[in-house]
This record gives sequence, structure tokens and C-alpha cells, in this order.
Amino acid sequence: MIFETSTQVRFAHVDPAGIVFYPRYFEMVNGAVEDWFAQSLGASFKTMHIDGGYGTPTVKLEVTFLSPSRLGDELTIRITPRVLGRTSCHINVVFTGEGRDRLNADIVLVCMDLNDHKARPWPDFIREKIAAQLVEAPSQA
Amino acid sequence: MIFETSTQVRFAHVDPAGIVFYPRYFEMVNGAVEDWFAQSLGASFKTMHIDGGYGTPTVKLEVTFLSPSRLGDELTIRITPRVLGRTSCHINVVFTGEGRDRLNADIVLVCMDLNDHKARPWPDFIREKIAAQLVEAPSQA
Amino acid sequence: MIFETSTQVRFAHVDPAGIVFYPRYFEMVNGAVEDWFAQSLGASFKTMHIDGGYGTPTVKLEVTFLSPSRLGDELTIRITPRVLGRTSCHINVVFTGEGRDRLNADIVLVCMDLNDHKARPWPDFIREKIAAQLVEAPSQA
Amino acid sequence: MIFETSTQVRFAHVDPAGIVFYPRYFEMVNGAVEDWFAQSLGASFKTMHIDGGYGTPTVKLEVTFLSPSRLGDELTIRITPRVLGRTSCHINVVFTGEGRDRLNADIVLVCMDLNDHKARPWPDFIREKIAAQLVEAPSQA
Repeated sequence: MIFETSTQVRFAHVDPAGIVFYPRYFEMVNGAVEDWFAQSLGASFKTMHIDGGYGTPTVKLEVTFLSPSRLGDELTIRITPRVLGRTSCHINVVFTGEGRDRLNADIVLVCMDLNDHKARPWPDFIREKIAAQLVEAPSQA
Repeated sequence: MIFETSTQVRFAHVDPAGIVFYPRYFEMVNGAVEDWFAQSLGASFKTMHIDGGYGTPTVKLEVTFLSPSRLGDELTIRITPRVLGRTSCHINVVFTGEGRDRLNADIVLVCMDLNDHKARPWPDFIREKIAAQLVEAPSQA
Repeated sequence: MIFETSTQVRFAHVDPAGIVFYPRYFEMVNGAVEDWFAQSLGASFKTMHIDGGYGTPTVKLEVTFLSPSRLGDELTIRITPRVLGRTSCHINVVFTGEGRDRLNADIVLVCMDLNDHKARPWPDFIREKIAAQLVEAPSQA
Repeated sequence: MIFETSTQVRFAHVDPAGIVFYPRYFEMVNGAVEDWFAQSLGASFKTMHIDGGYGTPTVKLEVTFLSPSRLGDELTIRITPRVLGRTSCHINVVFTGEGRDRLNADIVLVCMDLNDHKARPWPDFIREKIAAQLVEAPSQA
């Protein structure tokens, strides 16, 4: 299953060249992952961080910026979980607008205990939800 | 040749988990690339963007976050150019502090004309400087 | 008339103390002003900046942070225009959540020509819309 | 006594209009206050937040943006403590570059206990340092 959310390119996102300053894309990515956890996996970042004492930092990412985004662009963000490990999860994130992909990101999240900052297994209720959403990556042959 | 600069983990960089929020690392990466261009390649972003009408957006990045950084950490940032194309440049960026690597990034920059947002050849004076600094990536055999 | 929009406190907004880092509030304020212009005054920032060659920078602000906001809080933002000048506009902005005001801001915007960075009169269609929305500040006697 | 530090206008600070996006000024203000505490008052934010369990949030600010700052500008930031209360401190912050003041801010900081998010008295060693630096505001008669 693919989780879908949307965002708008704000004045705060755009650089002097008139296009999104790429660190701002990662704020949008992080917001989309927040939405995925809250709306689709049943775990808000508040519940996780404040009440549960665990978080889900990004440990690896590969991103290709495919075409620029400009002030006012409406973007669709799609999150597809690809691989689920005991303490990690690989997701693919694509930003699209007006039929053009803007960026394609492969991201590895881990479940981290906030007390010792070490990886820990996903809580079962999150694991089950992610497992049910897994979509195999298309073969690149 | 390896370009080296430094930064400090600021309150503005740190998340509720007490570690650097990863989009803030990319602001630091961008700042380090700015320093590299201004201090080592002889082209400030002001000169490039405002006077020259060209910029150097990031089109691809692969980043591994190796260990967390905390408020107050002093970080050394090293930039090594690896491959120089007609309109692009591959660089490796490493953040280190207290003997621990924090992140390792392989980044592809392009030289972009700000009028038509298309790739253009590097100006000669930049090309020559980068060419003189190229360091082959260590073989991974 | 009071313009109303809403926002959510994101992971990206929150500091190590668990509350909104105040510069992030101003990103939210700016986003709310963007929404006001686009949705209520008929002028998106894209239309203004890119097509029209004018913008509306903030020249003065007085802000009181009344109570902290935490990760996940849903906030209502209200914008009330108070005074309309030839080239400026005074607005009041209030953030509220769960019955508590979080911040109260009095902000002066100007209409600025982006070519010479000088103040210019508001376009008539914006002036008329703002004029129709003006609400006198409550007397503080 | 006036504490002085400096900063440079980075690509990350600048908006599509070519000038500093004002929320970024507050990141610079916060960084300058961090420097003041660490370098002049003997209390780094790390020591305060992580080890000491207290912080110093901003509760009120009045800012006038006097002239725009552009990519590459070198700015001097001056912090002058004006009034010291039991749990609060009023400071004046001025950004200057090339003889032009860019912004003038009057800011009220409080000392806050991070456990209950309530105001608490300044630690004595900070109070003494601030007290020794107080400079009365010039009369506006």
C-alpha cells in the first residue's frame, strides 16, 4: 500500500534561485513520515517520542532531485515501505507535481530508544501495520 | 586536496530527542560547500548567484548517518572532490567530531544557469581549481 | 473580518526542551500570512513575487509568547488587519490551541517593489480587500 | 558591557527576493544569545539544558527591521543587557553591516526550569555576570 499526503511549496522553502532549497525538502519528507506514522501506522510522533520514549531517526538516504519545484507548487508525496527489519524499515518517497516527479528518495529509518540512543525492535502494533503495507521494489533488470 | 571547515551544533539544529535533526545537517553541508567555493575555489555564492547568474544545486546525494551529534558538539567537515564532469562535480563530505564520523555523504553538484534552470559548463577558473583538488575515491575491493 | 487558518506543531518545530523553537513560529506566521493573501486577498505570493515583481516583507513586529506549544499541538492562527497605510498594513496575529493563546503578535507589513527594494503603494485590488477587513483594535483603557 | 559576535548571510538565510527571510534572523539572534551565554556568561546551552535542566526561552520581542541584508553580507551582532529581574533579563540586540543597522531588537529572556516549564531564578554565577554587564538604555527624551 502506498501512503499519500500533500504539501505546498511555501515562501520559506524557496531559495534566491527561485526553487526549493534542498534541505527544506527534507523537512517536508520528515513531515510526510510524521503523517504516515500518525495517520496510517497509528503512532503519532508525540505518542512515540513523549509518551513512548522511542523515535525513528533516519540512518541512510539516497535522493535524486529530478526536477525543480517552485513557489506555490502543489506536491503529492507518496511513501512506500519496501523492506521491514527487526529494528529498521526501508521506505521509498516520491514527490510529484503536475505530472513531473520532483525527487525520489530511498530512506532507511530505525526504531531508536531515546534513553540510550540504541536501535530497538519496532513495537508490534507498528510492525504489523508496516508489514501489511510492504510493496516489493520493481525489479530493475 | 581536502577542504576542511568546522561548525558547532547549535540549539537550532537539535530535535526533541537531543540530537541533530537531519535536515539541519544539510544546511551545514550547504554552508560548507559555500565555504569551499568562496575560500578554496575563488567563487562566492554571491558572485555566482547575484553577479554571474549561475548556481550549483545538488542533484543527487547518498548519505549515511553514522553516529548522532549533540548540542554543543564541535564538528569538522571535510569536502573531497572525486569526479569532475563538464557540468557536474561529485564530492564526498564527512562530518567528524571527537574521533567519530557523524555522517558520510556522496553528493553530485551541477553548474546551473539561473535564467533557464539548465546545466551549463563550469566556468574555467572554477573547473581548474576543482581539477587540481581531485582525489580518487579509495577502492572498495 | 478575521482570517483563520490552522497548523500543527511538527517535529521540525520543536527544540530540545520539548517546545516550539521560537524562530519556527515565524515560519508559521509567514505561512499564515501567505494563506491570508492567497485565500482571502486574492494574491498568492507566487503571483506577487514571480509575476508581479512585488512582495510584502515584515518591517516591525512585537510578539509576546504567552504559553508554550508542544509536539502535535493543533493551533488556530487568526489574522486581523488593524491599520492600512498607503504602502503598509498593521496586522494582529494570534495563535491559539486548546483554549490557550500561545502567542500574540502585532506585525507591520509593507508592500515592496522587488526591483529597487523600496516601498510602493498596495495594488488597488489588495487595498480594497484589506480595507474591507479592517477591525479596530480594542481600546486598552 | 556590550557583547559582540558576527555572522555571515548564508544561502540558507535568503529568500526569493534576494534578502534575508526574517525567521532566519531569529536563528541568528538565538545563535548570538548562545554565544553570549557560552563565551561571556560562562554557561553554554549544553551545560544549561542537558546538565542543568534549565533553559532561557524568549518570552517577548520587539523588532524593527531597518534595512535589508543580502547573500554574503558580513554582520556584526551586539547584545546589551538592559534590565535584570529575578527570573528574567531584557536585552537589546543590534545587527550591523557596512555601517548600516539591519535590525534592532528588544528581547525578554526568562530562566525556565525544563521539568515544570516554569520560571525560576537565574543561577547566581549567571546573575552576577549579567549584573556586571548591565547598560542603561539611552533616554529617549
